Amino acid sequence: MEAEIIAVGSEMLTAGRVDTNSLFLTAQLNDLGIEVTAKHVIGDDRERLASAVRRALGAVRLVIISGGLGPTEDDVTRDAVALALDRRQTFTPEILAGIEQRFRTMNRPMPEINRRQAMVIEGAHVLPNERGTAPGQWIEDADRIAVLLPGPPHELKHMFERQCLPRLARIAPPLAIHTLVLRISGMSESELDQTIAPIYKRYENPATTVLAHNGDMQVHLRARCASEREAKALLAEVGSQIELALGDRIYSRNGDPLEVVVGQKLAARRATLTVAESATGGGLADRISLVAGSSAYFLGGFVTYSRRLKMDLLGVPEDLLHRFGPVSRETALAMANGALRRTGATYAIAITGNAGPTTDGDEAPSGAFFVAIGTSQDVQVAHRVWPAPDRVRVRAFAAQMALDLLNRRLNQS
Amino acid sequence: MEAEIIAVGSEMLTAGRVDTNSLFLTAQLNDLGIEVTAKHVIGDDRERLASAVRRALGAVRLVIISGGLGPTEDDVTRDAVALALDRRQTFTPEILAGIEQRFRTMNRPMPEINRRQAMVIEGAHVLPNERGTAPGQWIEDADRIAVLLPGPPHELKHMFERQCLPRLARIAPPLAIHTLVLRISGMSESELDQTIAPIYKRYENPATTVLAHNGDMQVHLRARCASEREAKALLAEVGSQIELALGDRIYSRNGDPLEVVVGQKLAARRATLTVAESATGGGLADRISLVAGSSAYFLGGFVTYSRRLKMDLLGVPEDLLHRFGPVSRETALAMANGALRRTGATYAIAITGNAGPTTDGDEAPSGAFFVAIGTSQDVQVAHRVWPAPDRVRVRAFAAQMALDLLNRRLNQS
Repeated sequence: MEAEIIAVGSEMLTAGRVDTNSLFLTAQLNDLGIEVTAKHVIGDDRERLASAVRRALGAVRLVIISGGLGPTEDDVTRDAVALALDRRQTFTPEILAGIEQRFRTMNRPMPEINRRQAMVIEGAHVLPNERGTAPGQWIEDADRIAVLLPGPPHELKHMFERQCLPRLARIAPPLAIHTLVLRISGMSESELDQTIAPIYKRYENPATTVLAHNGDMQVHLRARCASEREAKALLAEVGSQIELALGDRIYSRNGDPLEVVVGQKLAARRATLTVAESATGGGLADRISLVAGSSAYFLGGFVTYSRRLKMDLLGVPEDLLHRFGPVSRETALAMANGALRRTGATYAIAITGNAGPTTDGDEAPSGAFFVAIGTSQDVQVAHRVWPAPDRVRVRAFAAQMALDLLNRRLNQS
Repeated sequence: MEAEIIAVGSEMLTAGRVDTNSLFLTAQLNDLGIEVTAKHVIGDDRERLASAVRRALGAVRLVIISGGLGPTEDDVTRDAVALALDRRQTFTPEILAGIEQRFRTMNRPMPEINRRQAMVIEGAHVLPNERGTAPGQWIEDADRIAVLLPGPPHELKHMFERQCLPRLARIAPPLAIHTLVLRISGMSESELDQTIAPIYKRYENPATTVLAHNGDMQVHLRARCASEREAKALLAEVGSQIELALGDRIYSRNGDPLEVVVGQKLAARRATLTVAESATGGGLADRISLVAGSSAYFLGGFVTYSRRLKMDLLGVPEDLLHRFGPVSRETALAMANGALRRTGATYAIAITGNAGPTTDGDEAPSGAFFVAIGTSQDVQVAHRVWPAPDRVRVRAFAAQMALDLLNRRLNQS
């Protein structure tokens, strides 16, 4: 079963507002196995809205329309849906009595315009509003269903849960839903998709979503089946093929981000970590220490943004900086060794690079990074250049790469 | 002139994701006097998208379609728009060469599937993508315009600003729009609104927006008038009243964030800055060093997450830590003094606190922070407790407070 959601209101067509009711509705509908195939925001325009409703009812079985049920001239949803379905509206005294009662309990006179809210589309079931004045309407037309809900989120949620869910559950019995989240690092989004698309494309169920953010990727597999056993079996079937294809690119199977996975491995072996950051300027330490409980393994570190601090705090020799430049394999190595020496940590990460936007006079191009990872026994340095760097993104990429390298290192030892 | 916006992507039809590109696009279009009459989210389905595009082009003159230009099978936008307009696509070797070049600079082989991104709809102007692989397309069909933009926000924004705005400005001559951005720190959002609402409520034009994010606030006044002179006069009239009401809570009148304002003051007096962070774990250094050119005044600093590093790196005496605890006025002061001594910087900021979620066994409650600011002559310590802390937010609040205090200090001297 498929649904479309239409949010009504010109204010949601301004630059500062998004419709969030549809997120709630989508979650609820998905749990019933109803797929949302499109969402729309339409302004307070009767003809435009009527045409959107007519089109949606031609495309899917269920159309939910939120907002535009208030008492003002701007509230066009009732009229628009009546127009779309070519039905009349009738004035319903019982609804008006309820609205009047509501105003009385607030000790306020009911404005005359609220009478509009007592208009009901022919054949509609009225959905009483326990949280506001605007009643909803549930309209069946052959095998199609149009549902009108009030716009204020607390009114909409309450009405949907109390009055729409039970009706929908009779039409679409809830499904058993299970989700597998794989988190992936160390490859590009297109490499990832090329690797797994041949697998997930063969299945409509589970639904697969690939998310990527600054080098960190997630694959969500969402199985919807009649029984829990079936959903789990399906996830196991598809998930195992994807896991096989990705191998050690997968760093987490429970949703944990990379900094948590690394932290757990460090804590498990009672190892400690320090960082020495130049171009990432504290961003890596920030990410590591945002994990609650990170003080168990994260000692802290150094932000050696200037040459002078690389020498004074980390003991990087001046002639090394002079010979190879601050953005070099040699400097990254010396920074990591210095950080290990000065803190006594088990592992160190050192990052030096040029986050842009300009290329330093004497040396490394914008986007060039060296990342050193290791222990006092053995430090390895990796090198990457990100093109057309954007300062924020390239720093995030470098921090991600560093955590990924440390994670692989911890997997080996 | 009217426009519709279509965001493409099944992931935006899940319960966890909203389309935000349309907010940016709406702001930009409104500045040109173009009204957005509807917004849509359509999944990765060629026929559905084609039908949505066909309908939108029948309703308004400009249709902007974002997303679905990637290299995978899910990326159906090119095919759908070609179908909607009944046009063919041609393979364009120059685009492929550009994509190949991009992969070469990243030292990665180009996956074969990226060839798809070199397909161009007949008659389209190609909009080169300087931030990613997917080029955009600008297609005119009689008096209608369809614009295809990539989904990642940083790619979309860059492409829209550079390549679409100039074309649109020729079609829809912009209104005179002037914006005054005041940035504010050192008060709560409700204090701010209570102070200025009596002023801005009196005006429909300029439109006023108040934004607040982790203790940093912005008031945007946006005047849209027939002439520049008129817009400026209106902004001056309303802006001066708001400035008078807020006084020195305003730290910037040109949109610059606090870390940039502080950086400019440091650079102007050839002063340098170091930081010593405990509970903020590198987040303050990260924010300071994200400013391009910050190496002129930011030397770097210390993330002394453990007690041991506070002693070893900053020379905080063990008995002081023992007597007062790591989250104390005394420790903050000793950290700042240690950072000044070890780096020779003119100014130091030191932050120690408990970001939560739990209260340390022996001492400070969750949400308690001490921030020390000063020079080798004079360090001042401020104390704050944020209630019900959320780790991410409370750390950001502490960093904001530190920058605000340093800014006030720099204003005095």
